[in-house]
Amino acid sequence: MFGRIDHIGVAVEDLDAAIALYREGFAMGEQHRETVAEFGVEAVLLEIGDGHVELLKPTGPDSGVAKFLDRNGPGIHHVAYQTDDIDSALAAVREAGMTLIDEQPRIGIRQSRVAFLHPKSTGGVLTELVEPAKVEGVTSDG
Amino acid sequence: MFGRIDHIGVAVEDLDAAIALYREGFAMGEQHRETVAEFGVEAVLLEIGDGHVELLKPTGPDSGVAKFLDRNGPGIHHVAYQTDDIDSALAAVREAGMTLIDEQPRIGIRQSRVAFLHPKSTGGVLTELVEPAKVEGVTSDG
Repeated sequence: MFGRIDHIGVAVEDLDAAIALYREGFAMGEQHRETVAEFGVEAVLLEIGDGHVELLKPTGPDSGVAKFLDRNGPGIHHVAYQTDDIDSALAAVREAGMTLIDEQPRIGIRQSRVAFLHPKSTGGVLTELVEPAKVEGVTSDG
Repeated sequence: MFGRIDHIGVAVEDLDAAIALYREGFAMGEQHRETVAEFGVEAVLLEIGDGHVELLKPTGPDSGVAKFLDRNGPGIHHVAYQTDDIDSALAAVREAGMTLIDEQPRIGIRQSRVAFLHPKSTGGVLTELVEPAKVEGVTSDG
């Protein structure tokens, strides 16, 4: 059902400092930057293999990432698993008794379809399902 | 320097319940189970693509994972990036000014060579570097 770990999401207070840290320490380059209004974040995708580290800085105090930073400080915010059929994946996790934050997929970074599962039903792990946008019949790497 | 996200480490209180959760919710199967004395954990690798979710249950109260559970409850404990040369990778992160928990690699699950970096120097993210064990000249997937 899930092809791979698509990315880990990392909450940061200073996006440029985090980009520099990953570039200098881990040789991970910036691949994409986007403000995702739906989630109240400015997001930067760093490249690692066919996956990503997604740096997340809140754009306002109501963002879930802002609340995470208030409670926890910077650190790992979520993990995302990639699927090629998020509707079936959501039906399966619902069937398994997990609690969905998003009953229907929302539009995430790079026009992917995404949905979050509630950590209370996933062993404390904020979990995102990601279906990358399809481009001209080819699946991009979301 | 880093080939991919090798795994995320997830701290759990009940290993069997977590295995069932990931099997039923995410169709991730158990690939390997091992008590890693060096880290005071019983660890289970679940398969996702060419990466893993590593479930971690402490074997005693002095385990780092036990302390994590006391502070945070179950959830994402660390992320691990795979490298084929951990000695060079450690030199590079040291050069970049990161603080190492392990100045020298230790032996982790499946005879991999691993080292942790201090979250205070990595934006709050407990980060592991992993060099999988080489088997007969072939690199296993750690």
